[in-house]
Amino acid sequence: MIRIGIIGAGRIGKVHLESITYHVKNAVVKAMADPFMNEETEKFIRGMGVEKIYQDYKKILEDPEIDAVLICSSTDTHASISIEAIEAGKNVFCEKPVDHALDKIKAVEDALAAHPECKFQVGFNRRFDHNFAAVRKAYDEGKIGEAHILKITSRDPEPPNPAYIKVSGGMFLDMTIHDFDMACFLTNSDVEEVYVQSAVLVDPAIGEQGDVDTAIITMKMANGALAVIDNSRRAAYGYDQRAELFGSKGMVATSNDTLSSAVISNAEGVTGEKPLFFFLERYMESFSEEMRQFVNACENGGQVPVGIHAGMQSVKIGLAAKKSVEEHRPVKISEL
Amino acid sequence: MIRIGIIGAGRIGKVHLESITYHVKNAVVKAMADPFMNEETEKFIRGMGVEKIYQDYKKILEDPEIDAVLICSSTDTHASISIEAIEAGKNVFCEKPVDHALDKIKAVEDALAAHPECKFQVGFNRRFDHNFAAVRKAYDEGKIGEAHILKITSRDPEPPNPAYIKVSGGMFLDMTIHDFDMACFLTNSDVEEVYVQSAVLVDPAIGEQGDVDTAIITMKMANGALAVIDNSRRAAYGYDQRAELFGSKGMVATSNDTLSSAVISNAEGVTGEKPLFFFLERYMESFSEEMRQFVNACENGGQVPVGIHAGMQSVKIGLAAKKSVEEHRPVKISEL
Amino acid sequence: MIRIGIIGAGRIGKVHLESITYHVKNAVVKAMADPFMNEETEKFIRGMGVEKIYQDYKKILEDPEIDAVLICSSTDTHASISIEAIEAGKNVFCEKPVDHALDKIKAVEDALAAHPECKFQVGFNRRFDHNFAAVRKAYDEGKIGEAHILKITSRDPEPPNPAYIKVSGGMFLDMTIHDFDMACFLTNSDVEEVYVQSAVLVDPAIGEQGDVDTAIITMKMANGALAVIDNSRRAAYGYDQRAELFGSKGMVATSNDTLSSAVISNAEGVTGEKPLFFFLERYMESFSEEMRQFVNACENGGQVPVGIHAGMQSVKIGLAAKKSVEEHRPVKISEL
Amino acid sequence: MIRIGIIGAGRIGKVHLESITYHVKNAVVKAMADPFMNEETEKFIRGMGVEKIYQDYKKILEDPEIDAVLICSSTDTHASISIEAIEAGKNVFCEKPVDHALDKIKAVEDALAAHPECKFQVGFNRRFDHNFAAVRKAYDEGKIGEAHILKITSRDPEPPNPAYIKVSGGMFLDMTIHDFDMACFLTNSDVEEVYVQSAVLVDPAIGEQGDVDTAIITMKMANGALAVIDNSRRAAYGYDQRAELFGSKGMVATSNDTLSSAVISNAEGVTGEKPLFFFLERYMESFSEEMRQFVNACENGGQVPVGIHAGMQSVKIGLAAKKSVEEHRPVKISEL
Repeated sequence: MIRIGIIGAGRIGKVHLESITYHVKNAVVKAMADPFMNEETEKFIRGMGVEKIYQDYKKILEDPEIDAVLICSSTDTHASISIEAIEAGKNVFCEKPVDHALDKIKAVEDALAAHPECKFQVGFNRRFDHNFAAVRKAYDEGKIGEAHILKITSRDPEPPNPAYIKVSGGMFLDMTIHDFDMACFLTNSDVEEVYVQSAVLVDPAIGEQGDVDTAIITMKMANGALAVIDNSRRAAYGYDQRAELFGSKGMVATSNDTLSSAVISNAEGVTGEKPLFFFLERYMESFSEEMRQFVNACENGGQVPVGIHAGMQSVKIGLAAKKSVEEHRPVKISEL
Repeated sequence: MIRIGIIGAGRIGKVHLESITYHVKNAVVKAMADPFMNEETEKFIRGMGVEKIYQDYKKILEDPEIDAVLICSSTDTHASISIEAIEAGKNVFCEKPVDHALDKIKAVEDALAAHPECKFQVGFNRRFDHNFAAVRKAYDEGKIGEAHILKITSRDPEPPNPAYIKVSGGMFLDMTIHDFDMACFLTNSDVEEVYVQSAVLVDPAIGEQGDVDTAIITMKMANGALAVIDNSRRAAYGYDQRAELFGSKGMVATSNDTLSSAVISNAEGVTGEKPLFFFLERYMESFSEEMRQFVNACENGGQVPVGIHAGMQSVKIGLAAKKSVEEHRPVKISEL
Repeated sequence: MIRIGIIGAGRIGKVHLESITYHVKNAVVKAMADPFMNEETEKFIRGMGVEKIYQDYKKILEDPEIDAVLICSSTDTHASISIEAIEAGKNVFCEKPVDHALDKIKAVEDALAAHPECKFQVGFNRRFDHNFAAVRKAYDEGKIGEAHILKITSRDPEPPNPAYIKVSGGMFLDMTIHDFDMACFLTNSDVEEVYVQSAVLVDPAIGEQGDVDTAIITMKMANGALAVIDNSRRAAYGYDQRAELFGSKGMVATSNDTLSSAVISNAEGVTGEKPLFFFLERYMESFSEEMRQFVNACENGGQVPVGIHAGMQSVKIGLAAKKSVEEHRPVKISEL
Repeated sequence: MIRIGIIGAGRIGKVHLESITYHVKNAVVKAMADPFMNEETEKFIRGMGVEKIYQDYKKILEDPEIDAVLICSSTDTHASISIEAIEAGKNVFCEKPVDHALDKIKAVEDALAAHPECKFQVGFNRRFDHNFAAVRKAYDEGKIGEAHILKITSRDPEPPNPAYIKVSGGMFLDMTIHDFDMACFLTNSDVEEVYVQSAVLVDPAIGEQGDVDTAIITMKMANGALAVIDNSRRAAYGYDQRAELFGSKGMVATSNDTLSSAVISNAEGVTGEKPLFFFLERYMESFSEEMRQFVNACENGGQVPVGIHAGMQSVKIGLAAKKSVEEHRPVKISEL
């Protein structure tokens, strides 16, 4: 039974608390910390059976009864707390992105190099989604041959509020970072070069913050495949999350999940349901699955499914994408 | 080059004229006859290059330059003109149904027995539809194993006008007769027994004519399979024409044809096009294909794809269905 | 917090234990009883946090700390334990069927009439399935108008072993009973008349037990709609569970659930995943939802979503279906 | 009745001959010319009722009985014959591309400016395809709002033979040119800038000819929308032709056409048919429709649906794409 401490009691921290409590058999959340812990949150956490509740996360790191910590605090603290946790001898699950600055991620890499026994997983939950996992599985099984073209469609149902845009690091580090990781995962390859064509078409307020809301991102993968991501901050029909991998022997493609398969035919047409609207609804099962695999790695000593390399790659691609927009040219990852 | 005379210049006669002219390479329509031939129709026919236009169909039967006749006159004349044509040495394509009375169909069978060289085809065009033909092909190729359950959905977009109901012979002989033939075609078997559960749900005026407009018809096929047809005289979304054959190794199923594959996703849902509304639009290609196969049989001497047996079977099943409604019990074909 | 005792620790008892523990927030399983309780089962139950484990179910009925009992024992005990539980003042969730004999179900009805405060729910979990619930919702919202034709396809992935056939009450009371309930649920109506066309096409051993394995069942609903169920004990492609409701304004139809939406296009064709194979996989979420609604009715005093009337109806239809096979004729529910 | 002369009796010339003969009511092909006219071709043409057959196309231009000419000769003659035909007072339908050199297309523009009465249509048949036309129609009707992202997938079933590659002008002017025109058509806008990420992944022999066989092409449209085309010279599953237009109010997307809608479910999965393999099969109806619209413009004096501007735009985009590959940077159309 792996004993877990969760650092950060915001939305994603609570999601992991519920996942572990209800869907991970060999783990239990023993402690949770948040500097802004309020009464309501504390009541909820206690109701889930968590014994130790703190404001100071260091209490978790000091606790010898804790085997693993989940770092769900604000992004700017991910790297430093990760290093502290690694040095405290804990296994670590760190939410994405590890940081926006490459040197800080490098510092985590160094800490891990010094503690090779530490299990360190980055929270790219979409790798565990049933649809995307099925794409990778088809590829691994040779069903589509060598990868030639990967297409990812990733469109949010609603833009974030403009205040958030400023602190988010911009669309590429906030939203597309998931798609960058997905590109690497689905082609089983790193990225070599990135080119972005982008625009502000959804909301001028986003442009006023210096960000974009619509983009087509082309990538050359290290294994020779080409990849393209299309992003929008607002799809009128909901959360659009699809992938298509085309190769020498065929293609595998996914469509969106819906609440039911019911289709209504009437005088207006033949109408099915919209995609699930909210990311927690859409990806809930993937959050449980990433936890199960992290806990298994901690318990049985195998490799974590998403390591620090993925955490570094995704941010590098994001920074290259930003540079491509600024300089309006293709940018190599090796330039960073 | 097969030289054809068409008897009857109504809607279906004109459909065949166009099909042969534009889509059948080794045939030409030389003559056309209709007792009510009017100026507009005559102009249309002549514009299609037909040289001989008559009111009296006997002129076609007497013409030694005519190899084959299409009987597209009113149902009550199908059998007698068929016999005359057979005896005149013509090959015959007869629209469905051959007749509503079994003894009249029997008389055609007798005439054919006396003229074994005659090619006699019944106009069950749906057998030549791309979707239904693909179901039978999958079955013939063993892809679904032995047939266990056949389901046919057949719903018209609009009920006929009440005046037509009276002369139509009722829903089973007018509309379902196509589905009865399809049941035999798709399972490659005759029918042994029929049971009907029916109702008047679309239009009370249909009930006042002594007919029904909604029905579920269960059949036991001679090869052991079970079959079910569901009929409605009005589907709000258009012409619904589907089949599903389930067997020991799997299932083959078809969906409706649409004008395009375009699907619109918006705040209301994910909406594709309605099925093609009108039977001529839906089945146009099948009318050409049945002609091509009839002409080929005439030219090359092979078997016609739909013979008098199918013409007899479908009417027997229709009469058994009527009897099942009247006596509210399963009726065997052998009882007729 | 509703305190629950589960009577019967077989497969379905364990399913409910897990559902309540992980997915029902306002309930807890306090006790579980099974005359054949073994060590392994006991360990599992205790691991889920159940405090009281018995062989004798009466201990649960006597326990004043228990608010509601789930009756998951063998079918022949459902009715008698239900009555005991009702008289002991417990709320009751009874697995389907309540019994195979109408007089025994009547006895439960009588007990309930004498204890109107008792919440009594029958375990027709499919009513809570996302797809079937969406069909009923579309109907309730008037999107398809008045119901004309209901079609249910229900095919098992594999036949039960022949030994089970004997004790199962036959296909209609064992398997189709779910579909009978679904017919009533989806049309929001009772059944008036049943006709069955059936066969032994899957396995002769089933026929040797006096049962059938393939059937088309036609029904006339009390509200005038027609309904048809097609059943097979073995679909080569997995568990086939679909419904289609056709009405005056349109149609609503569902398709099968799959593990993922991935579709592979290659030289062989365009291939998606098979339906989920196992009923627990397919319907797991519906088991949780029926529990949530039962617990809510117990806690808040509202009506249960599936009462004794549904339990009675479904068995009546099953018995009428058996009679229809024996006498080869349509059978009215009122004849029973 | 528009009297037509066809210049060039190769594959596409014969396609138009058949289309006009069978599917265009108000036109007739009177003459056909080809310098390499052979006996078999002549027999075929005469069998279709064409009276005048020449080797020298000038005989067609001189014929006062010819209202319109179709230029179906080799690409390098399109522009010069177009100019001769315009000056001879004929209406002109010119196959795509008008030329590979912008100055030659400019010369055609000049000739048209001097003969404003001339109807001049370029052979971008895909605009008349039922699926793509439905996308544009949805956009025109405001169903998806303002265009934000256009995605076109265009993959051939088989690469051309290497000998053809050399004379084809390269993939962008040979194959993608259709997609470039489609991008303009579907967004109703010109292109402003192009960036290409390309590779040789299908056949090294193509690379040896200095061409590419796989590409992702990003475009900025003049109306602000972003567009992306993905191309492959070989899709193992056939001819892949899809489009998706995403906008402020929603999305419209098409899928591939198949021979039938039959889907087989068995132990291997749920398998539908592959896309139609051959472009003539896939686009046959669009060839008829472009002819009908050209003939109507000739007969009734309206505008042709695809003029010289589209012919110029598509080649400019193609040349910009080539330059983008050579210089590995985004290229503006205005740079050409």
